[in-house]
Amino acid sequence: MYRTHHCGELRSENCGTSVTLSGWVQTVRDKGHIIWVDLRDRYGITQIVGEKGVIEDVVLDQLKGLNREDVVQITGEVIERYQKNPEMPTGDIEIKAAKVNILNKAITPPFTIENETDGGEELRMKYRYLDLRRNPIQEKLKLRHKVSLETRKYLDAVDFIEVETPYLIKSTPEGARDFVVPSRMNPGEFYALPQSPQTFKQLLMVSGFDRYYQIVKCFRDEDLRADRQPEFTQIDCEMAFVEQEDVLQTFEGLIKHLFKICRNHEFEGDFPRMTYAEAMERFGSDKPDMRFEMEFVDLNPVAKGRGFGVFDSAEQVLAINAKDCAGYTRKQLDKLIDWVKRPQVGAKGLIYCKCNEDGSFKSSVDKFFDQDALAAWAKACKADKGDLLLVLSGDLATVRSQMNELRLHMGDELGLRNPNVFAPLWVLDFPLLEWDEESGRYHAMHHPFTSPKAEDFHLIDTDPGKVRANAYDLAVNGVELGGGSIRIHDKKLQARMFELLGFSDEEAKAQFGFLMNAFEYGAPPHGGLAFGFDRLVATMGGSESIRDYIAFPKNNSGRDVMIDSPAPIDAAQLTELFLATKAVPEKQ
Amino acid sequence: MYRTHHCGELRSENCGTSVTLSGWVQTVRDKGHIIWVDLRDRYGITQIVGEKGVIEDVVLDQLKGLNREDVVQITGEVIERYQKNPEMPTGDIEIKAAKVNILNKAITPPFTIENETDGGEELRMKYRYLDLRRNPIQEKLKLRHKVSLETRKYLDAVDFIEVETPYLIKSTPEGARDFVVPSRMNPGEFYALPQSPQTFKQLLMVSGFDRYYQIVKCFRDEDLRADRQPEFTQIDCEMAFVEQEDVLQTFEGLIKHLFKICRNHEFEGDFPRMTYAEAMERFGSDKPDMRFEMEFVDLNPVAKGRGFGVFDSAEQVLAINAKDCAGYTRKQLDKLIDWVKRPQVGAKGLIYCKCNEDGSFKSSVDKFFDQDALAAWAKACKADKGDLLLVLSGDLATVRSQMNELRLHMGDELGLRNPNVFAPLWVLDFPLLEWDEESGRYHAMHHPFTSPKAEDFHLIDTDPGKVRANAYDLAVNGVELGGGSIRIHDKKLQARMFELLGFSDEEAKAQFGFLMNAFEYGAPPHGGLAFGFDRLVATMGGSESIRDYIAFPKNNSGRDVMIDSPAPIDAAQLTELFLATKAVPEKQ
Repeated sequence: MYRTHHCGELRSENCGTSVTLSGWVQTVRDKGHIIWVDLRDRYGITQIVGEKGVIEDVVLDQLKGLNREDVVQITGEVIERYQKNPEMPTGDIEIKAAKVNILNKAITPPFTIENETDGGEELRMKYRYLDLRRNPIQEKLKLRHKVSLETRKYLDAVDFIEVETPYLIKSTPEGARDFVVPSRMNPGEFYALPQSPQTFKQLLMVSGFDRYYQIVKCFRDEDLRADRQPEFTQIDCEMAFVEQEDVLQTFEGLIKHLFKICRNHEFEGDFPRMTYAEAMERFGSDKPDMRFEMEFVDLNPVAKGRGFGVFDSAEQVLAINAKDCAGYTRKQLDKLIDWVKRPQVGAKGLIYCKCNEDGSFKSSVDKFFDQDALAAWAKACKADKGDLLLVLSGDLATVRSQMNELRLHMGDELGLRNPNVFAPLWVLDFPLLEWDEESGRYHAMHHPFTSPKAEDFHLIDTDPGKVRANAYDLAVNGVELGGGSIRIHDKKLQARMFELLGFSDEEAKAQFGFLMNAFEYGAPPHGGLAFGFDRLVATMGGSESIRDYIAFPKNNSGRDVMIDSPAPIDAAQLTELFLATKAVPEKQ
Repeated sequence: MYRTHHCGELRSENCGTSVTLSGWVQTVRDKGHIIWVDLRDRYGITQIVGEKGVIEDVVLDQLKGLNREDVVQITGEVIERYQKNPEMPTGDIEIKAAKVNILNKAITPPFTIENETDGGEELRMKYRYLDLRRNPIQEKLKLRHKVSLETRKYLDAVDFIEVETPYLIKSTPEGARDFVVPSRMNPGEFYALPQSPQTFKQLLMVSGFDRYYQIVKCFRDEDLRADRQPEFTQIDCEMAFVEQEDVLQTFEGLIKHLFKICRNHEFEGDFPRMTYAEAMERFGSDKPDMRFEMEFVDLNPVAKGRGFGVFDSAEQVLAINAKDCAGYTRKQLDKLIDWVKRPQVGAKGLIYCKCNEDGSFKSSVDKFFDQDALAAWAKACKADKGDLLLVLSGDLATVRSQMNELRLHMGDELGLRNPNVFAPLWVLDFPLLEWDEESGRYHAMHHPFTSPKAEDFHLIDTDPGKVRANAYDLAVNGVELGGGSIRIHDKKLQARMFELLGFSDEEAKAQFGFLMNAFEYGAPPHGGLAFGFDRLVATMGGSESIRDYIAFPKNNSGRDVMIDSPAPIDAAQLTELFLATKAVPEKQ
């Protein structure tokens, strides 16, 4: 071992002993006759001191020769500091250098290895191994480690077994696009990387494993949006002989445990619950941010039929009440209007109504709405003097989606989205199916194995879009952390679902025949859930971006810029796989 | 929840209470007026009883209608059994059925779901979800779960952090063949699945993570031998600022902990150690089975120069002493001779010498060796009366390899390889390089990042094959459970290694440039090790085959016969990937 102690360990009581530390040079402060070197490792920083006349000249010269990020081993006596630093755990002591052994010299890093670095995103990704030296990133990955270990300990304690499911599986056209892996031993055939271990965990229930979990990598070949990764990690879980309530209780328990142990945060009482329908109506989102209210108000009764064509022709007029924002200037309001008009939101415009302190109202549609009419708006919105109403209109789905964006934006503007406040919400009763205009058929909203609610099942032939599922999501702070469902365990019902989803018998059999066969041999009722692990840890860490919670993330083109991957492969490799690459058409 | 208790839970003290159990029907014993049903779940078996006149007729009829593997929910009173079964944890009680709810009927399984099944390997793999219901398989996967969790708890306690490294990485020609993954977003380019996270864990050391581990899937596209899987699991570890001794101590501690907690087995003292050279000399293997002795004896001094051409022309004559086997019959000896002649061993023949109880010797080469000469053999082999010497000859490497096979075979025959005896061995000082005849160059024996021993480094130019590495393996019972090395942390030495291995500067840079760059910025001395997790668990479970310790294994052609993968993919998928499959030439 190149050290007797690590750099976060020594205290006053160690004074007088000789120690050896190893680590990286964080800073060198050279005052000529005296020099201080901060030595850093994962555990902390310890100050090394060398004074002319006190230590050997040759050692002093070695200390003077050190540069940032050099790797050194230093032996010396622990001594009490003259000026203690109460900010540092090792701030009471320093090491009087007696021997300096340079283990590896470092060239100057391309950005500073400090909490606040001067490195841009791209540079930090290319030199990710240096970025990972920075304390904030190390802390995030330590949190990730802790959350994963605590997840396992908790689930083990309540009888879950971690079972590894295969990574080389079979491509299925349902859901997102698969990454595929050509098989050399079976030319012309391909494995697929799993988008989730869904069918395998259901088979484990058929096998009687009773309670399964796995922290597992999953893969989706999607066009990447910000903060999507082609490979991501799930906490994947399944339970047999359970109903929805059992699943919710079990995993609410897990989440509470994780926040308590890893964040020292205790939730009060049960997590609130809301149906999908209610969440859409009140917040225009299936994962509303519950850290603040600003609920949607249906303005149809007081806004339509007043001769304002935009509202009259709209299916839905919606308002939100931005408390205490009546003082917004023209400039601020214009900025808001521009914001909702951006293509990412896509509104045609934004109507406002200021509830002035003097009891009067000032709106951008004064021409159509007199003071009484605006007072009716304010009443509907339970607005007080000083509040600002923001109004959008359009067809129901679109206006909800736009208003959701605006609500979150206002939440940000007004500082209502504190990342260290945690507001969980179970969203229940998701629709079973959603209509896809492009393919002209229903798709499974969750996946094809989700069970319909028994009380809605009679609608399956007449109005399938109305059928609700035994499906649930957990959202925290407007982020979907996970979701799941009670599955179909009856072969006939599963066959009916495949039919509804447009699978022919042959397609269903070719792709999921093993699962349907398995259901013939005694499948228990079962259900489960999966958490997005990257997102869970980022949310726990108070961050909206998952990237820094992943040691080696890919960029938005799916590239790892550090190792420069993907990359062309040898012609010989392609030949062995009986594959040829085709020319890519030039971009126009 | 479909149950109040599970099937392994109820005891005498529960008598008189009403309970609900759910599970699978294991057996039905119908005596007409009374019927017993064994209900099974992951936790155990509970007996259900229905007696005419005691329970309702309709319930009795339901019980009579049950078949093996039906999934049922049964409510009833816990009662004391008339005839207790001390073999079963629940053997004191039974449930007087009051209500039977059939959750799912099962058709007859293709093989019996019992500890000893009548299903052949292929059938069991096709219906793996049924095979997984069998108790021996469930126990193996429970052991696997336990070992993985205990590994994590142990390593966490000694400051290791689990860091997830990427699965979509870059293909490198060194080592085994990669599985590749075409990138749709980067046409013509490919990711590779990792053979191990080797370079990433070294980067984590450069990043200052100090102690890293990961239980992680790895992938190798090799022609599969029995008991090789294209995807397998590793416990992958790395430590900074350590020397070989630190690594050995740390992971010996882990292995001892795992055997103690998961197998209730305590090892006495330190694990024995042996150099590679010694292991090859004494046992002809770099992973000798230390459960028994039967060491190789160099018979050259007493066997050569006696006019027996086979020996005289051989580089090496080796013997082993099979204790107490002088009584082997002609038939037994012929069988042994046939065994060594099989192509898997490939010996041309086998010479024996019986040390008879009367002090005489009987050998298959009596013509060339008189009693005195054979007595010299016996003396060299420290043989007693009643022992049997088995002798092979040939060039050194070949005869060692053949004798290793024979020794293991004799160990099996003589019952010296008890799977519940555990004999660990550290094998040290592996050669750095091995000569590859085919490519006419040296290959890294471990991998290109392994450091040479400082004291051998002067041989690097003159006799590179002689250079020993700071590389080590842990073998238990003749199985290599893991291995590792102290790595190179100096950029110049790493460049020299790439050169030795035949990499041009450009190749080294293209493939490992990021690692060599990283070494510029302050790499600490580091080293590590990886355990084959499937093999570790199988060995702990007392099994030589890893397949039953994997939930969903692939067969020897790399196929998952349950889900029928790999499989052709849609033409549209290939088009999106800018790929075409080429015709496979007909097999001649």
